[in-house]
Amino acid sequence: MYEPTDKNRNILLLLRFDGTAYHGWQVQKNAVTVQQVLQDALEAVLGSRPGVTGCSRTDAGVHACEYACNFRTSSNIPCDGLLRAFNASLPADIAVTACRDVPERFHARYSAAGKEYIYKIYNGETRDPFLEGYALHYPYRLDIPAMRRAAGGFIGRHDFSSFCTSNGSVADRVREVTLLELGSKGALLTVRVRADGFLYNMVRIIVGTLLNVSQGRIGEGDIPDVIAARSRSCAGPTAPPHGLYLNRVFYEAEAMN
Amino acid sequence: MYEPTDKNRNILLLLRFDGTAYHGWQVQKNAVTVQQVLQDALEAVLGSRPGVTGCSRTDAGVHACEYACNFRTSSNIPCDGLLRAFNASLPADIAVTACRDVPERFHARYSAAGKEYIYKIYNGETRDPFLEGYALHYPYRLDIPAMRRAAGGFIGRHDFSSFCTSNGSVADRVREVTLLELGSKGALLTVRVRADGFLYNMVRIIVGTLLNVSQGRIGEGDIPDVIAARSRSCAGPTAPPHGLYLNRVFYEAEAMN
Repeated sequence: MYEPTDKNRNILLLLRFDGTAYHGWQVQKNAVTVQQVLQDALEAVLGSRPGVTGCSRTDAGVHACEYACNFRTSSNIPCDGLLRAFNASLPADIAVTACRDVPERFHARYSAAGKEYIYKIYNGETRDPFLEGYALHYPYRLDIPAMRRAAGGFIGRHDFSSFCTSNGSVADRVREVTLLELGSKGALLTVRVRADGFLYNMVRIIVGTLLNVSQGRIGEGDIPDVIAARSRSCAGPTAPPHGLYLNRVFYEAEAMN
Repeated sequence: MYEPTDKNRNILLLLRFDGTAYHGWQVQKNAVTVQQVLQDALEAVLGSRPGVTGCSRTDAGVHACEYACNFRTSSNIPCDGLLRAFNASLPADIAVTACRDVPERFHARYSAAGKEYIYKIYNGETRDPFLEGYALHYPYRLDIPAMRRAAGGFIGRHDFSSFCTSNGSVADRVREVTLLELGSKGALLTVRVRADGFLYNMVRIIVGTLLNVSQGRIGEGDIPDVIAARSRSCAGPTAPPHGLYLNRVFYEAEAMN
Protein backbone atom coordinates (compact mmCIF):
# COMPACT_ATOMS: atom_id res chain seq x y z
CA MET A 1 0.00 0.00 0.00
CA TYR A 2 1.13 3.54 -0.77
CA GLU A 3 2.56 5.39 2.25
CA PRO A 4 2.24 9.19 2.16
CA THR A 5 5.57 10.92 2.68
CA ASP A 6 4.25 14.13 4.17
CA LYS A 7 1.11 15.54 5.65
CA ASN A 8 -0.41 16.45 2.29
CA ARG A 9 -2.32 13.24 1.86
CA ASN A 10 -4.34 12.34 -1.22
CA ILE A 11 -7.13 10.01 -0.17
CA LEU A 12 -9.31 7.75 -2.30
CA LEU A 13 -12.81 6.93 -1.09
CA LEU A 14 -15.10 4.31 -2.59
CA LEU A 15 -18.80 5.07 -2.02
CA ARG A 16 -21.96 3.02 -2.31
CA PHE A 17 -25.09 5.14 -2.55
CA ASP A 18 -28.81 5.01 -3.16
CA GLY A 19 -29.29 7.95 -5.53
CA THR A 20 -33.07 8.24 -5.03
CA ALA A 21 -32.92 11.31 -2.81
CA TYR A 22 -30.12 13.11 -4.69
CA HIS A 23 -29.86 15.35 -7.71
CA GLY A 24 -26.83 13.43 -8.90
CA TRP A 25 -23.23 13.76 -7.81
CA GLN A 26 -22.20 17.32 -8.57
CA VAL A 27 -22.84 20.26 -6.23
CA GLN A 28 -25.71 22.45 -7.48
CA LYS A 29 -27.59 25.41 -6.16
CA ASN A 30 -31.00 24.62 -4.62
CA ALA A 31 -30.65 20.83 -4.85
CA VAL A 32 -29.12 18.21 -2.57
CA THR A 33 -26.31 16.25 -4.21
CA VAL A 34 -24.06 13.39 -3.14
CA GLN A 35 -20.93 15.54 -3.41
CA GLN A 36 -22.40 18.21 -1.15
CA VAL A 37 -23.55 15.74 1.51
CA LEU A 38 -20.18 13.97 1.37
CA GLN A 39 -18.29 17.26 1.75
CA ASP A 40 -20.50 18.12 4.75
CA ALA A 41 -19.55 14.80 6.39
CA LEU A 42 -15.84 15.25 5.60
CA GLU A 43 -15.93 18.75 7.06
CA ALA A 44 -17.58 17.46 10.24
CA VAL A 45 -14.77 14.94 10.69
CA LEU A 46 -11.74 16.92 9.43
CA GLY A 47 -12.66 20.37 10.69
CA SER A 48 -12.11 21.91 7.26
CA ARG A 49 -13.98 21.43 4.01
CA PRO A 50 -11.97 19.62 1.33
CA GLY A 51 -12.91 19.79 -2.34
CA VAL A 52 -13.79 16.26 -3.45
CA THR A 53 -13.06 15.11 -7.01
CA GLY A 54 -15.52 12.52 -8.33
CA CYS A 55 -14.94 9.88 -11.02
CA SER A 56 -17.97 11.06 -12.99
CA ARG A 57 -21.09 13.16 -12.86
CA THR A 58 -24.11 10.99 -12.24
CA ASP A 59 -27.68 12.09 -12.96
CA ALA A 60 -30.50 12.52 -10.47
CA GLY A 61 -31.79 9.15 -9.28
CA VAL A 62 -28.76 7.16 -10.52
CA HIS A 63 -27.24 4.77 -7.96
CA ALA A 64 -23.71 3.57 -7.30
CA CYS A 65 -22.43 0.24 -6.06
CA GLU A 66 -18.90 1.67 -6.26
CA TYR A 67 -18.22 5.34 -6.89
CA ALA A 68 -14.61 6.58 -6.62
CA CYS A 69 -13.58 10.04 -5.45
CA ASN A 70 -10.50 11.64 -3.90
CA PHE A 71 -9.61 14.60 -1.73
CA ARG A 72 -6.55 16.12 -0.07
CA THR A 73 -6.06 16.58 3.65
CA SER A 74 -3.36 17.22 6.24
CA SER A 75 -5.22 15.10 8.81
CA ASN A 76 -3.15 12.34 10.36
CA ILE A 77 -6.12 10.13 11.25
CA PRO A 78 -5.44 6.62 9.89
CA CYS A 79 -7.64 5.44 7.02
CA ASP A 80 -9.66 2.94 9.06
CA GLY A 81 -10.51 5.69 11.55
CA LEU A 82 -11.51 8.06 8.73
CA LEU A 83 -13.74 5.39 7.20
CA ARG A 84 -15.60 4.82 10.46
CA ALA A 85 -15.90 8.56 11.20
CA PHE A 86 -17.16 9.42 7.69
CA ASN A 87 -19.78 6.65 7.88
CA ALA A 88 -20.91 7.91 11.28
CA SER A 89 -21.41 11.39 9.78
CA LEU A 90 -23.09 10.33 6.53
CA PRO A 91 -26.82 9.64 6.08
CA ALA A 92 -27.95 6.02 5.71
CA ASP A 93 -28.23 6.21 1.92
CA ILE A 94 -24.50 6.88 1.40
CA ALA A 95 -21.75 4.59 2.71
CA VAL A 96 -17.96 4.75 2.42
CA THR A 97 -16.87 1.18 1.66
CA ALA A 98 -13.12 1.83 1.32
CA CYS A 99 -10.63 4.55 2.24
CA ARG A 100 -6.93 4.54 1.31
CA ASP A 101 -3.94 6.80 0.72
CA VAL A 102 -3.03 7.15 -2.94
CA PRO A 103 -0.11 8.90 -4.68
CA GLU A 104 -0.21 12.66 -5.23
CA ARG A 105 -0.80 12.14 -8.99
CA PHE A 106 -4.00 10.06 -8.48
CA HIS A 107 -7.14 11.77 -9.84
CA ALA A 108 -10.50 9.99 -9.52
CA ARG A 109 -11.61 11.04 -13.01
CA TYR A 110 -8.43 11.42 -15.09
CA SER A 111 -6.76 8.30 -13.68
CA ALA A 112 -9.77 6.08 -14.43
CA ALA A 113 -8.98 3.50 -17.11
CA GLY A 114 -12.59 2.39 -17.45
CA LYS A 115 -15.95 1.99 -15.77
CA GLU A 116 -18.70 -0.57 -15.57
CA TYR A 117 -22.38 0.29 -15.29
CA ILE A 118 -25.31 -2.02 -14.76
CA TYR A 119 -28.91 -1.30 -15.71
CA LYS A 120 -31.75 -3.28 -14.11
CA ILE A 121 -35.03 -4.02 -15.92
CA TYR A 122 -37.88 -5.69 -14.03
CA ASN A 123 -40.00 -7.62 -16.51
CA GLY A 124 -42.82 -8.77 -14.19
CA GLU A 125 -46.43 -8.08 -15.15
CA THR A 126 -47.27 -6.33 -11.85
CA ARG A 127 -44.90 -3.74 -10.36
CA ASP A 128 -42.64 -4.91 -7.52
CA PRO A 129 -42.77 -2.49 -4.55
CA PHE A 130 -39.23 -3.50 -3.55
CA LEU A 131 -37.83 -2.51 -6.95
CA GLU A 132 -39.57 0.88 -7.21
CA GLY A 133 -36.76 3.37 -7.87
CA TYR A 134 -34.24 0.52 -8.31
CA ALA A 135 -35.16 -1.00 -11.68
CA LEU A 136 -37.10 0.02 -14.78
CA HIS A 137 -40.49 -1.72 -14.69
CA TYR A 138 -41.03 -3.01 -18.23
CA PRO A 139 -44.14 -5.26 -18.21
CA TYR A 140 -44.09 -6.10 -21.95
CA ARG A 141 -42.61 -9.10 -23.73
CA LEU A 142 -38.79 -9.02 -23.91
CA ASP A 143 -36.96 -10.72 -26.77
CA ILE A 144 -33.78 -11.33 -24.79
CA PRO A 145 -32.08 -13.49 -27.49
CA ALA A 146 -32.52 -10.64 -30.03
CA MET A 147 -31.24 -8.10 -27.48
CA ARG A 148 -28.18 -10.32 -26.82
CA ARG A 149 -27.42 -10.58 -30.53
CA ALA A 150 -27.80 -6.81 -30.94
CA ALA A 151 -25.50 -6.20 -27.95
CA GLY A 152 -22.57 -7.64 -29.91
CA GLY A 153 -22.83 -4.72 -32.34
CA PHE A 154 -21.73 -2.24 -29.67
CA ILE A 155 -18.45 -3.95 -28.85
CA GLY A 156 -15.33 -2.17 -30.06
CA ARG A 157 -13.95 1.32 -30.62
CA HIS A 158 -16.54 3.59 -32.21
CA ASP A 159 -17.73 7.17 -32.42
CA PHE A 160 -20.78 6.90 -30.15
CA SER A 161 -22.39 10.25 -31.14
CA SER A 162 -25.68 8.40 -31.74
CA PHE A 163 -25.61 7.42 -28.05
CA CYS A 164 -24.96 10.81 -26.52
CA THR A 165 -27.47 13.41 -25.40
CA SER A 166 -26.29 16.33 -27.50
CA ASN A 167 -24.85 19.05 -25.32
CA GLY A 168 -22.10 19.92 -27.75
CA SER A 169 -19.43 20.12 -25.07
CA VAL A 170 -17.54 16.90 -25.82
CA ALA A 171 -15.43 17.02 -28.99
CA ASP A 172 -14.12 13.46 -28.99
CA ARG A 173 -16.98 10.98 -28.95
CA VAL A 174 -14.91 7.88 -29.63
CA ARG A 175 -15.14 5.31 -26.85
CA GLU A 176 -14.27 1.62 -26.60
CA VAL A 177 -17.00 -0.69 -25.31
CA THR A 178 -15.28 -3.86 -24.07
CA LEU A 179 -18.25 -5.70 -22.54
CA LEU A 180 -22.02 -5.59 -23.04
CA GLU A 181 -23.82 -8.56 -21.56
CA LEU A 182 -27.39 -9.32 -20.51
CA GLY A 183 -27.98 -11.47 -17.44
CA SER A 184 -31.43 -12.81 -16.72
CA LYS A 185 -32.63 -14.13 -13.34
CA GLY A 186 -36.34 -14.67 -12.85
CA ALA A 187 -38.10 -11.51 -14.03
CA LEU A 188 -35.00 -9.34 -13.55
CA LEU A 189 -32.82 -8.52 -16.56
CA THR A 190 -29.44 -6.91 -15.88
CA VAL A 191 -27.54 -5.14 -18.67
CA ARG A 192 -23.81 -4.81 -17.90
CA VAL A 193 -21.69 -2.37 -19.93
CA ARG A 194 -17.96 -1.77 -19.61
CA ALA A 195 -16.03 0.89 -21.54
CA ASP A 196 -12.93 3.06 -21.27
CA GLY A 197 -15.29 6.00 -20.80
CA PHE A 198 -18.91 6.98 -21.34
CA LEU A 199 -20.63 9.89 -23.06
CA TYR A 200 -23.54 11.73 -21.43
CA ASN A 201 -26.53 9.31 -21.07
CA MET A 202 -24.68 6.69 -23.15
CA VAL A 203 -25.72 3.66 -21.07
CA ARG A 204 -29.34 4.80 -20.82
CA ILE A 205 -29.53 5.31 -24.61
CA ILE A 206 -27.92 1.89 -25.22
CA VAL A 207 -30.61 0.35 -22.96
CA GLY A 208 -33.41 2.27 -24.72
CA THR A 209 -32.02 1.05 -28.04
CA LEU A 210 -31.91 -2.58 -26.87
CA LEU A 211 -35.57 -2.24 -25.81
CA ASN A 212 -36.35 -0.93 -29.31
CA VAL A 213 -34.64 -4.04 -30.71
CA SER A 214 -36.87 -6.19 -28.46
CA GLN A 215 -39.91 -4.34 -29.86
CA GLY A 216 -38.71 -4.85 -33.45
CA ARG A 217 -38.37 -1.11 -34.05
CA ILE A 218 -34.64 -1.50 -34.65
CA GLY A 219 -33.28 -4.65 -36.31
CA GLU A 220 -30.98 -6.83 -34.18
CA GLY A 221 -28.30 -6.50 -36.88
CA ASP A 222 -28.68 -2.75 -37.31
CA ILE A 223 -26.57 -1.50 -34.40
CA PRO A 224 -23.46 -0.91 -36.61
CA ASP A 225 -25.64 1.29 -38.87
CA VAL A 226 -27.06 3.20 -35.91
CA ILE A 227 -23.50 3.83 -34.66
CA ALA A 228 -22.29 4.82 -38.15
CA ALA A 229 -25.11 7.38 -38.50
CA ARG A 230 -23.57 9.42 -35.66
CA SER A 231 -27.04 10.86 -35.07
CA ARG A 232 -28.92 10.75 -31.78
CA SER A 233 -32.24 10.38 -33.62
CA CYS A 234 -31.23 6.97 -35.03
CA ALA A 235 -30.88 5.38 -31.59
CA GLY A 236 -33.64 4.46 -29.13
CA PRO A 237 -35.00 6.59 -26.28
CA THR A 238 -33.07 7.40 -23.09
CA ALA A 239 -34.08 4.84 -20.45
CA PRO A 240 -34.99 6.39 -17.07
CA PRO A 241 -32.23 6.99 -14.50
CA HIS A 242 -33.47 4.86 -11.61
CA GLY A 243 -32.44 1.53 -13.21
CA LEU A 244 -28.81 2.68 -13.60
CA TYR A 245 -25.93 1.85 -11.23
CA LEU A 246 -22.27 2.82 -11.53
CA ASN A 247 -20.93 -0.62 -10.62
CA ARG A 248 -17.11 -0.36 -10.77
CA VAL A 249 -14.33 2.04 -11.67
CA PHE A 250 -11.06 0.63 -12.99
CA TYR A 251 -7.65 2.17 -12.26
CA GLU A 252 -4.21 1.09 -13.40
CA ALA A 253 -2.17 -0.28 -10.50
CA GLU A 254 0.41 2.38 -11.41
CA ALA A 255 -1.98 5.24 -10.55
CA MET A 256 -2.75 3.72 -7.17
CA ASN A 257 0.67 2.74 -5.83
CA MET B 1 -61.56 -21.92 -9.96
CA TYR B 2 -64.50 -21.04 -7.72
CA GLU B 3 -67.39 -19.34 -9.53
CA PRO B 4 -69.56 -17.03 -7.42
CA THR B 5 -73.24 -17.95 -7.63
CA ASP B 6 -74.64 -14.51 -6.91
CA LYS B 7 -73.56 -10.94 -6.74
CA ASN B 8 -72.25 -11.21 -3.18
CA ARG B 9 -68.73 -12.04 -4.14
CA ASN B 10 -65.98 -12.88 -1.63
CA ILE B 11 -62.66 -11.84 -3.14
CA LEU B 12 -59.13 -12.80 -2.10
CA LEU B 13 -56.28 -10.40 -2.78
CA LEU B 14 -52.59 -11.16 -2.44
CA LEU B 15 -50.49 -8.07 -1.73
CA ARG B 16 -46.79 -7.34 -1.90
CA PHE B 17 -45.79 -4.25 0.07
CA ASP B 18 -42.84 -2.25 1.29
CA GLY B 19 -43.87 -1.52 4.89
CA THR B 20 -41.37 1.33 5.44
CA ALA B 21 -43.95 4.12 5.17
CA TYR B 22 -46.75 2.35 7.06
CA HIS B 23 -47.71 1.86 10.68
CA GLY B 24 -48.46 -1.79 10.04
CA TRP B 25 -51.57 -3.35 8.55
CA GLN B 26 -54.42 -2.39 10.80
CA VAL B 27 -56.34 0.88 10.54
CA GLN B 28 -55.38 3.32 13.32
CA LYS B 29 -56.18 6.87 14.18
CA ASN B 30 -53.50 9.40 13.22
CA ALA B 31 -51.26 6.95 11.35
CA VAL B 32 -51.21 5.68 7.77
CA THR B 33 -51.65 1.91 7.51
CA VAL B 34 -51.72 -0.58 4.65
CA GLN B 35 -55.34 -1.54 5.35
CA GLN B 36 -56.46 2.09 5.17
CA VAL B 37 -54.61 2.82 1.92
CA LEU B 38 -55.92 -0.41 0.39
CA GLN B 39 -59.50 0.42 1.40
CA ASP B 40 -59.08 3.88 -0.16
CA ALA B 41 -58.01 2.25 -3.45
CA LEU B 42 -60.86 -0.30 -3.33
CA GLU B 43 -63.35 2.49 -2.69
CA ALA B 44 -61.98 4.49 -5.65
CA VAL B 45 -62.54 1.48 -7.94
CA LEU B 46 -65.76 0.01 -6.49
CA GLY B 47 -67.57 3.20 -5.54
CA SER B 48 -68.24 1.93 -2.02
CA ARG B 49 -65.85 1.17 0.81
CA PRO B 50 -65.58 -2.54 1.66
CA GLY B 51 -64.19 -3.75 4.98
CA VAL B 52 -61.04 -5.74 4.25
CA THR B 53 -60.07 -8.72 6.44
CA GLY B 54 -56.32 -9.26 6.70
CA CYS B 55 -54.47 -12.51 7.41
CA SER B 56 -52.57 -10.93 10.31
CA ARG B 57 -51.65 -7.68 11.94
CA THR B 58 -48.18 -6.63 10.95
CA ASP B 59 -46.10 -4.10 12.86
CA ALA B 60 -44.85 -0.75 11.62
CA GLY B 61 -41.97 -1.19 9.16
CA VAL B 62 -42.67 -4.90 8.50
CA HIS B 63 -42.81 -5.90 4.82
CA ALA B 64 -44.78 -8.50 2.89
CA CYS B 65 -43.85 -10.56 -0.15
CA GLU B 66 -47.31 -12.12 0.02
CA TYR B 67 -50.04 -10.82 2.32
CA ALA B 68 -53.54 -12.31 1.99
CA CYS B 69 -56.79 -10.42 2.60
CA ASN B 70 -60.41 -10.70 1.51
CA PHE B 71 -63.44 -8.47 1.07
CA ARG B 72 -67.02 -8.73 -0.15
CA THR B 73 -68.48 -6.84 -3.09
CA SER B 74 -71.44 -6.87 -5.45
CA SER B 75 -69.28 -5.53 -8.30
CA ASN B 76 -69.36 -7.62 -11.46
CA ILE B 77 -65.95 -6.49 -12.73
CA PRO B 78 -63.89 -9.61 -13.58
CA CYS B 79 -60.90 -10.35 -11.35
CA ASP B 80 -58.25 -9.40 -13.91
CA GLY B 81 -59.95 -6.01 -14.36
CA LEU B 82 -60.10 -5.50 -10.59
CA LEU B 83 -56.41 -6.36 -10.25
CA ARG B 84 -55.38 -3.78 -12.85
CA ALA B 85 -57.73 -1.12 -11.45
CA PHE B 86 -56.57 -1.64 -7.84
CA ASN B 87 -52.92 -1.42 -8.90
CA ALA B 88 -53.63 1.79 -10.80
CA SER B 89 -55.17 3.28 -7.63
CA LEU B 90 -52.56 2.08 -5.15
CA PRO B 91 -49.28 3.87 -4.36
CA ALA B 92 -46.05 2.37 -5.70
CA ASP B 93 -45.13 0.68 -2.40
CA ILE B 94 -48.20 -1.61 -2.41
CA ALA B 95 -49.04 -3.99 -5.29
CA VAL B 96 -51.86 -6.48 -5.75
CA THR B 97 -50.20 -9.60 -7.21
CA ALA B 98 -53.31 -11.82 -7.38
CA CYS B 99 -57.10 -11.41 -7.25
CA ARG B 100 -59.61 -14.27 -7.26
CA ASP B 101 -63.14 -15.22 -6.21
CA VAL B 102 -63.23 -17.52 -3.20
CA PRO B 103 -66.14 -19.30 -1.45
CA GLU B 104 -68.33 -17.40 0.98
CA ARG B 105 -66.75 -19.26 3.92
CA PHE B 106 -63.18 -18.14 3.11
CA HIS B 107 -61.67 -15.86 5.79
CA ALA B 108 -58.13 -14.53 5.30
CA ARG B 109 -57.24 -15.04 8.98
CA TYR B 110 -59.36 -17.96 10.22
CA SER B 111 -58.92 -20.05 7.08
CA ALA B 112 -55.11 -19.75 7.18
CA ALA B 113 -53.46 -23.10 7.88
CA GLY B 114 -50.02 -21.59 8.33
CA LYS B 115 -47.64 -18.78 7.47
CA GLU B 116 -44.02 -18.33 6.53
CA TYR B 117 -41.92 -15.34 7.52
CA ILE B 118 -38.40 -14.48 6.49
CA TYR B 119 -36.00 -12.25 8.41
CA LYS B 120 -32.99 -10.71 6.65
CA ILE B 121 -29.72 -9.97 8.46
CA TYR B 122 -26.96 -8.08 6.63
CA ASN B 123 -23.62 -9.10 8.14
CA GLY B 124 -21.31 -6.72 6.23
CA GLU B 125 -18.90 -4.51 8.15
CA THR B 126 -20.13 -1.26 6.54
CA ARG B 127 -23.84 -0.57 6.13
CA ASP B 128 -25.36 -1.20 2.70
CA PRO B 129 -27.47 1.79 1.53
CA PHE B 130 -29.62 -0.53 -0.60
CA LEU B 131 -30.56 -2.65 2.44
CA GLU B 132 -31.42 0.24 4.80
CA GLY B 133 -34.93 -0.52 6.01
CA TYR B 134 -34.86 -3.97 4.37
CA ALA B 135 -32.48 -5.98 6.56
CA LEU B 136 -31.05 -5.78 10.07
CA HIS B 137 -27.46 -4.52 9.81
CA TYR B 138 -25.48 -6.74 12.19
CA PRO B 139 -21.76 -5.99 11.66
CA TYR B 140 -20.41 -8.43 14.28
CA ARG B 141 -19.21 -11.99 13.86
CA LEU B 142 -22.02 -14.49 13.26
CA ASP B 143 -21.66 -18.11 14.36
CA ILE B 144 -24.03 -19.49 11.74
CA PRO B 145 -23.32 -23.18 12.48
CA ALA B 146 -24.26 -22.62 16.17
CA MET B 147 -27.39 -20.69 15.11
CA ARG B 148 -28.35 -23.56 12.77
CA ARG B 149 -27.95 -26.13 15.53
CA ALA B 150 -30.00 -23.97 17.91
CA ALA B 151 -32.73 -23.57 15.27
CA GLY B 152 -33.55 -27.28 15.53
CA GLY B 153 -34.71 -26.72 19.13
CA PHE B 154 -37.67 -24.63 17.97
CA ILE B 155 -39.18 -27.29 15.70
CA GLY B 156 -42.36 -28.92 16.97
CA ARG B 157 -45.47 -28.13 18.95
CA HIS B 158 -44.68 -26.01 22.00
CA ASP B 159 -46.07 -23.34 24.29
CA PHE B 160 -44.13 -20.35 22.92
CA SER B 161 -44.90 -17.94 25.82
CA SER B 162 -41.15 -17.18 26.05
CA PHE B 163 -41.36 -15.87 22.48
CA CYS B 164 -44.35 -13.58 22.85
CA THR B 165 -44.42 -9.93 23.83
CA SER B 166 -46.73 -10.15 26.81
CA ASN B 167 -49.97 -8.39 26.12
CA GLY B 168 -52.01 -10.94 28.00
CA SER B 169 -54.70 -11.15 25.37
CA VAL B 170 -53.87 -14.56 23.89
CA ALA B 171 -54.81 -17.51 26.12
CA ASP B 172 -53.47 -20.35 23.98
CA ARG B 173 -49.80 -19.89 23.25
CA VAL B 174 -49.19 -23.32 21.77
CA ARG B 175 -47.96 -23.16 18.19
CA GLU B 176 -46.29 -25.67 15.88
CA VAL B 177 -43.09 -24.55 14.17
CA THR B 178 -42.59 -26.78 11.13
CA LEU B 179 -39.56 -25.14 9.53
CA LEU B 180 -36.75 -22.91 10.80
CA GLU B 181 -33.82 -22.65 8.41
CA LEU B 182 -30.93 -20.24 7.89
CA GLY B 183 -29.80 -19.46 4.35
CA SER B 184 -26.54 -17.62 3.78
CA LYS B 185 -25.55 -15.85 0.56
CA GLY B 186 -22.58 -13.50 0.66
CA ALA B 187 -23.05 -11.21 3.67
CA LEU B 188 -26.83 -11.74 3.73
CA LEU B 189 -28.31 -14.24 6.19
CA THR B 190 -31.98 -15.16 5.74
CA VAL B 191 -33.91 -16.84 8.57
CA ARG B 192 -37.03 -18.64 7.32
CA VAL B 193 -39.71 -19.69 9.83
CA ARG B 194 -42.91 -21.59 9.09
CA ALA B 195 -45.63 -22.35 11.67
CA ASP B 196 -49.36 -22.96 11.91
CA GLY B 197 -49.62 -19.57 13.58
CA PHE B 198 -47.47 -16.95 15.28
CA LEU B 199 -47.70 -15.08 18.58
CA TYR B 200 -47.09 -11.34 18.79
CA ASN B 201 -43.43 -10.60 17.89
CA MET B 202 -42.65 -14.34 17.84
CA VAL B 203 -40.39 -14.30 14.75
CA ARG B 204 -38.52 -11.20 15.91
CA ILE B 205 -37.87 -12.74 19.34
CA ILE B 206 -36.73 -16.02 17.73
CA VAL B 207 -34.25 -14.00 15.63
CA GLY B 208 -33.06 -12.02 18.68
CA THR B 209 -32.57 -15.33 20.50
CA LEU B 210 -30.57 -16.83 17.61
CA LEU B 211 -28.33 -13.72 17.69
CA ASN B 212 -27.84 -14.30 21.44
CA VAL B 213 -26.80 -17.88 20.60
CA SER B 214 -24.26 -16.49 18.10
CA GLN B 215 -22.90 -14.23 20.85
CA GLY B 216 -22.68 -17.15 23.31
CA ARG B 217 -25.21 -15.57 25.69
CA ILE B 218 -27.57 -18.50 25.20
CA GLY B 219 -26.18 -22.01 24.63
CA GLU B 220 -26.95 -23.59 21.28
CA GLY B 221 -28.53 -26.55 23.10
CA ASP B 222 -30.58 -24.41 25.50
CA ILE B 223 -33.57 -23.56 23.27
CA PRO B 224 -35.74 -26.36 24.76
CA ASP B 225 -35.07 -24.91 28.24
CA VAL B 226 -35.90 -21.38 27.07
CA ILE B 227 -39.19 -22.66 25.64
CA ALA B 228 -39.95 -24.70 28.78
CA ALA B 229 -39.45 -21.64 30.99
CA ARG B 230 -42.50 -19.99 29.39
CA SER B 231 -41.00 -16.65 30.36
CA ARG B 232 -40.26 -13.79 27.99
CA SER B 233 -37.20 -12.81 30.02
CA CYS B 234 -35.44 -16.10 29.22
CA ALA B 235 -35.41 -15.45 25.47
CA GLY B 236 -33.31 -12.93 23.53
CA PRO B 237 -34.30 -9.38 22.55
CA THR B 238 -36.93 -8.50 19.94
CA ALA B 239 -35.11 -7.94 16.63
CA PRO B 240 -36.18 -4.73 14.83
CA PRO B 241 -39.16 -4.84 12.44
CA HIS B 242 -37.50 -3.73 9.20
CA GLY B 243 -35.77 -7.10 8.57
CA LEU B 244 -39.09 -8.97 8.72
CA TYR B 245 -41.18 -10.08 5.72
CA LEU B 246 -44.44 -12.05 5.70
CA ASN B 247 -43.41 -14.38 2.89
CA ARG B 248 -46.35 -16.75 2.33
CA VAL B 249 -49.75 -17.66 3.76
CA PHE B 250 -50.97 -21.25 3.42
CA TYR B 251 -54.63 -22.18 2.91
CA GLU B 252 -56.22 -25.61 2.56
CA ALA B 253 -57.49 -26.16 -0.98
CA GLU B 254 -60.90 -26.79 0.60
CA ALA B 255 -61.16 -23.21 1.88
CA MET B 256 -60.31 -21.81 -1.54
CA ASN B 257 -62.50 -23.86 -3.90
